[in-house]
Amino acid sequence: MSKVFFDLGITLDGYIAGPNGGAKNPLGDGGISIHNWMFKQKAFLNHLKLEGGETNNKDNDIIEEIFNRIGANIMGKNMFIEGEVNWPEEAPFHCPVYVLTKEKREPWKRLGGTTFYFTDESLETVLEKAKKDAGKKDVRVSGGASVVQQYLNAGLIDEFTLHLAPMIMGKGVKLFENIDKEKLSVEIKEVVSSPMVTHLFYKVIKK
Amino acid sequence: MSKVFFDLGITLDGYIAGPNGGAKNPLGDGGISIHNWMFKQKAFLNHLKLEGGETNNKDNDIIEEIFNRIGANIMGKNMFIEGEVNWPEEAPFHCPVYVLTKEKREPWKRLGGTTFYFTDESLETVLEKAKKDAGKKDVRVSGGASVVQQYLNAGLIDEFTLHLAPMIMGKGVKLFENIDKEKLSVEIKEVVSSPMVTHLFYKVIKK
Repeated sequence: MSKVFFDLGITLDGYIAGPNGGAKNPLGDGGISIHNWMFKQKAFLNHLKLEGGETNNKDNDIIEEIFNRIGANIMGKNMFIEGEVNWPEEAPFHCPVYVLTKEKREPWKRLGGTTFYFTDESLETVLEKAKKDAGKKDVRVSGGASVVQQYLNAGLIDEFTLHLAPMIMGKGVKLFENIDKEKLSVEIKEVVSSPMVTHLFYKVIKK
Repeated sequence: MSKVFFDLGITLDGYIAGPNGGAKNPLGDGGISIHNWMFKQKAFLNHLKLEGGETNNKDNDIIEEIFNRIGANIMGKNMFIEGEVNWPEEAPFHCPVYVLTKEKREPWKRLGGTTFYFTDESLETVLEKAKKDAGKKDVRVSGGASVVQQYLNAGLIDEFTLHLAPMIMGKGVKLFENIDKEKLSVEIKEVVSSPMVTHLFYKVIKK
């Protein structure tokens, strides 16, 4: 059955981005280091239409598996603003992306199958649309932290993956804040380790 | 060569204890859940002179390995205050424990080889004494968070282990705060996963 999940790189101190993020500073100060492991993998570079990268390792396999499972994305306004000016013309989604924003805007169609839909409907309504688009594939709540928190608190997340980078960020955007922990518990599904990063797969159990 | 390390249970949001901790509420509200995996293991129960527990699993092996490597401990005043009234008469250290405190107090000898030494000397001086006591074994900076942070910032930690519990705490005592991240980087040494917890072993690289 189709799942709703999020999948984020995170530091030992729980940050998914550095401070001062924005269109001119995507991922915030120092935030790009969280994803060092990813920039070396062919599956990631290929998705951005770039050459090179490593293939024969677990990190690359995991990126491929994640891209393959996504049938639709949901993201927050700030994540879109950061990405809009930085993604290539062939945006790296290749499926529908719902952007949660109060801004009225026509759907924005990009090369390669990505269409951004701008909506201020409820979390549930947007998710229903994304699920319909995704069919048998999964829906990814792409971020940022606030959108993930809202979907977690609404009991709408089935699974999540953290790519735990061996680094301390100190300040920036924390993932697990404002969570109503009485509503959910977490179970370990799988752990895959590599020299650069630890991939942690969890299931969310709704209470 | 003898190493200086810390070894702590931690939640997905980076807490090593719940809020409102103290002598009457060790580990704070909800903090004991961080260690659920540990209370099931024979190596841990045995250390507290309790019966039962599981033996044939990686979690138990890891507890044994950690206890076996410790030749001396260093801990903060608050951790001692929490433990003093709760540890059994045969305190679960079986080696010297240096307590960082301004309080003047004679060494406190317990059954089974634990002696608590109370000191307000510098981090470096205390560590030198602990190293001498430990001989070929390792020195554990036991906690709490503030003492670990001070030793990390002083460049005196060689390695650390995090036992990552699949839970969100929400509030309490955070481990990685006030770290001068310019002074150190972290490398993955080993990851051991089990159904209840993920054991993350890291090396500290001093810059």
